[in-house]
Amino acid sequence: MYDVTKSYKDEILKLISTTHETKDVSVKNGIIVKKFNFPEACSTDGVGTKGVYHWQQRSFRNAVLDALAMNLNDLVMSRARAYKLQNHLILPEDDRESILEIIKNFVNECKKRNIAITGGETSIHDNINGMDISVTIDGLIENPRKNKFESGDILVGIKSNGLHSNGFTKVRELYGDEFRPEFIEPTLVYSDALLEIGKKFEIHGMMHITGGAFSKLKGVLGDNDVLIKPHTLKPKNIFYEIYSKGVSDEEMYKTFNCGVGFVLGVSKIIVHGVVSLLNNAGFKSDIIGEVVSGSGRVLIDSAFSEKKVVF
Amino acid sequence: MYDVTKSYKDEILKLISTTHETKDVSVKNGIIVKKFNFPEACSTDGVGTKGVYHWQQRSFRNAVLDALAMNLNDLVMSRARAYKLQNHLILPEDDRESILEIIKNFVNECKKRNIAITGGETSIHDNINGMDISVTIDGLIENPRKNKFESGDILVGIKSNGLHSNGFTKVRELYGDEFRPEFIEPTLVYSDALLEIGKKFEIHGMMHITGGAFSKLKGVLGDNDVLIKPHTLKPKNIFYEIYSKGVSDEEMYKTFNCGVGFVLGVSKIIVHGVVSLLNNAGFKSDIIGEVVSGSGRVLIDSAFSEKKVVF
Repeated sequence: MYDVTKSYKDEILKLISTTHETKDVSVKNGIIVKKFNFPEACSTDGVGTKGVYHWQQRSFRNAVLDALAMNLNDLVMSRARAYKLQNHLILPEDDRESILEIIKNFVNECKKRNIAITGGETSIHDNINGMDISVTIDGLIENPRKNKFESGDILVGIKSNGLHSNGFTKVRELYGDEFRPEFIEPTLVYSDALLEIGKKFEIHGMMHITGGAFSKLKGVLGDNDVLIKPHTLKPKNIFYEIYSKGVSDEEMYKTFNCGVGFVLGVSKIIVHGVVSLLNNAGFKSDIIGEVVSGSGRVLIDSAFSEKKVVF
Repeated sequence: MYDVTKSYKDEILKLISTTHETKDVSVKNGIIVKKFNFPEACSTDGVGTKGVYHWQQRSFRNAVLDALAMNLNDLVMSRARAYKLQNHLILPEDDRESILEIIKNFVNECKKRNIAITGGETSIHDNINGMDISVTIDGLIENPRKNKFESGDILVGIKSNGLHSNGFTKVRELYGDEFRPEFIEPTLVYSDALLEIGKKFEIHGMMHITGGAFSKLKGVLGDNDVLIKPHTLKPKNIFYEIYSKGVSDEEMYKTFNCGVGFVLGVSKIIVHGVVSLLNNAGFKSDIIGEVVSGSGRVLIDSAFSEKKVVF
């Protein structure tokens, strides 16, 4: 519950109340009434140690986009459309201006997507260096489907915006106090486009490339193998720079998205339709590989060398 | 989403799956199906800077009780019965044993209360001193009622277990590196008993005494005044010790629960019934004051001196 003793509490409540009447839910005096009767999915995630940079640089809009993207892109794998959000801001100082800027950005992004902000908490921790924003989002699932690649599927990758929100413990280990603008670029939100595309085309499997990166693909391939071939979604320079600091190909592909923020597995017959819709939605996407009968492995032609990475 | 690349992820998923079939909700493959159609309420809160002590002392069971109590005692003010929980563990080290101990404690406490743990996140932050556990709990409301003291109500206080989970920034300021066992005593969970009592008696208003402490009562008194008179729920020694370090009466009552963790406003006619049910449920409770026509003030006879505190 937002701290009732804070001077900015009324402003927070007023701001979030502008999100309280949506097509899926209404909220009044903290009571949530749903206008649907579908199964749901729920996601919790935060910006992690990337929050160190966001706090230093006051890049609060990007921090909010990161926190949203981490959850929305996870929820879309369950075909869930977000309808409700709680946030927990953990800041090193009780800074009214920062808190309200964060809340305003949440309100703007949630209004666009018909998400009601039902509440949250602001915690001031003098034992943290940097900030974290933890978000819990509930989504409704009109058409539940399994999330699984099928043998013969073509893999479509969607280009990332850079590092997104994972691998930052490694980044801080490598860069120490050095700062790069690439460290605060926001994670792309793919879910809006993917929910639309899912209405037109049958997507067999989806994976949000976050913590664990390409090794996460093992979760959706069953007994098949995934082959990631040379493709046009080249890693941005920051990834080559990180690689040049002595990180192995294997560590790159299990720590970073290496240029690909999201992967879809679809039938060959619809692949060009899917790529075309993604590109129309403003993303760069392309075929990055395929799914073949195998033994549950992920085999990657590294973009950084001639090596093959196997998970 | 719990990190798929961690060795303990399967254990976490197995543990939480034991909470997935309850009378209110069922969860399968991350899809949540509700067995009710009531309005809901939602709460997010964490253990705050008390987590510094919990991490030092490895008092994970108490940390879980704190995180639960902070949310469940808030939800009961909306007459909401918890049915679903997401957690976000923020730890300074990737310590498998600690993580599994925390999850096991969540599972035990949630099973007792028919709460499904639908997911969460473990974040390893090397930029935090101590730990935090942020929890988001959804509850269903069978009988929505306003939460408001009425003129003529008698105030029933329920004794706290000590500091509970607030005022720890002040505690750390006063005690520095010094540790006291009182710093890790868990917050009492009042909600189970209060939900039962609410079925038998009409409780007009309720307040969980947390951040803001007694000044929070202003949120439920409307135009009335609240008078807190001398009563039998004496503050534990730790509060007298804090007071002796030069904290004013006013700051004590707006920072700490000073012995009273929860306050109810009920009609005179049922007050002894309510106190008796609370005491049967294992709590110490007593009359601590009354609600009178007034101007929205909280007036307290300090337990620490002859002074009166006014909010």
